[in-house]
Amino acid sequence: MSGFVSFVSSGPGDPDLITLKAVDRLKRADVVLFDDLASGPVLGHAGAQAELIAVGKRAGKPSAKQEHVNALLVEHAAAGKRVVRLKSGDSGIFGRLEEELTALRAAGIESEIIPGVPSACAAAAAAGIPLTRRLTARRVQFVTGADITGGLPETINWAALADGAATTVVFMGKRTFPRLAAGLIAHGLAPDTPAMLAEAVGHPEQAITRATVADLAARLEGARSDHPALILYGPLADLA
Amino acid sequence: MSGFVSFVSSGPGDPDLITLKAVDRLKRADVVLFDDLASGPVLGHAGAQAELIAVGKRAGKPSAKQEHVNALLVEHAAAGKRVVRLKSGDSGIFGRLEEELTALRAAGIESEIIPGVPSACAAAAAAGIPLTRRLTARRVQFVTGADITGGLPETINWAALADGAATTVVFMGKRTFPRLAAGLIAHGLAPDTPAMLAEAVGHPEQAITRATVADLAARLEGARSDHPALILYGPLADLA
Repeated sequence: MSGFVSFVSSGPGDPDLITLKAVDRLKRADVVLFDDLASGPVLGHAGAQAELIAVGKRAGKPSAKQEHVNALLVEHAAAGKRVVRLKSGDSGIFGRLEEELTALRAAGIESEIIPGVPSACAAAAAAGIPLTRRLTARRVQFVTGADITGGLPETINWAALADGAATTVVFMGKRTFPRLAAGLIAHGLAPDTPAMLAEAVGHPEQAITRATVADLAARLEGARSDHPALILYGPLADLA
Repeated sequence: MSGFVSFVSSGPGDPDLITLKAVDRLKRADVVLFDDLASGPVLGHAGAQAELIAVGKRAGKPSAKQEHVNALLVEHAAAGKRVVRLKSGDSGIFGRLEEELTALRAAGIESEIIPGVPSACAAAAAAGIPLTRRLTARRVQFVTGADITGGLPETINWAALADGAATTVVFMGKRTFPRLAAGLIAHGLAPDTPAMLAEAVGHPEQAITRATVADLAARLEGARSDHPALILYGPLADLA
């Protein structure tokens, strides 16, 4: 008898921003594989029988290799276990879901994806702003500010990102934002476009900083990237 | 004593894809203003004391004017009520949240935004695909396929939308997709880019149709727009 893997989106961190379906899957899990980003209070929804396995990045320790996570998923499911793979935010957005799905399909193991609240949506909600507005912000986009080396990605669609009529949310972009912002401004984005830095969204230490694109870039010069942070810019960022 | 408005995201329609926080706000509401899109099973979370007021589009009936919704929100909150304004998907995405927020702020009424699962995330999850992939799909964008007249919006960032390295989800775009697709292909998007039509996501009658951008455009020629539908295209749309 083969097991089953549920990719469960845990939402932005606040344990009340998890869905009823995610709670159900956690309650019934035999094994929960989690990243530190998604851990803490959310894991409280898991049943007492569940084996909890940390596989994500931890302060000061190297993270488990993606191949190792894939192997653990296959191993536990092949042993007939009901496996939950917990991913922060929405599992389909910047969560390397594709690599894990592909590994399971190669091994003939069935899975499901439980969608969740993206951290970008939670950041906007916490700041009291919508992500779209009729006529003036008809497009919203989520991008990564860093590639696997930690640097700005080599290929950037500047026409898409320097569009003052869209709301853009940059994931993992705190360290690279000064360089990104310089490129955006060079490609025509107004330096005074409203911007917002949202740190530790959904966690008790959540902090929202409002600025402009140019000011935020200046403030983040030399920034380290200890806390998960999102940067949002566009016409709605200063609404509240 | 003034009331309070909670903008509550109900998620894509499946009552189990609502968050714990949304359920809490529904349970404690005196008044719930809802659109038909967000109605049905989700309203079952409201307490017996709650007054339920439909304000959205209904088959065969004209929808309430936005100004009327704004006025109802202000009226009930000013009467000291705990008001829930239920919006499908994530309330910050294509939900006209900005107009309602602005009306409340003008009236000095406090509010909060409870984020939710966007229907775009639920559609991808239902189809078994992620929205992003390392290296090849580093950007995801949500756009509207129709403006308030029902036609294709006049201003479109073609460089952003015709990008084969992004995942794009088009909301309210079933009728206009043939015209949109022609423009995308004219601006360089490969006609055989994988595409997907997701209808009634999160509802029992949910249907996922897989095609290419060109084929889907041909199929939707002359389509009417009775059911809520999302169109997703990009390198991941044919993964499953």
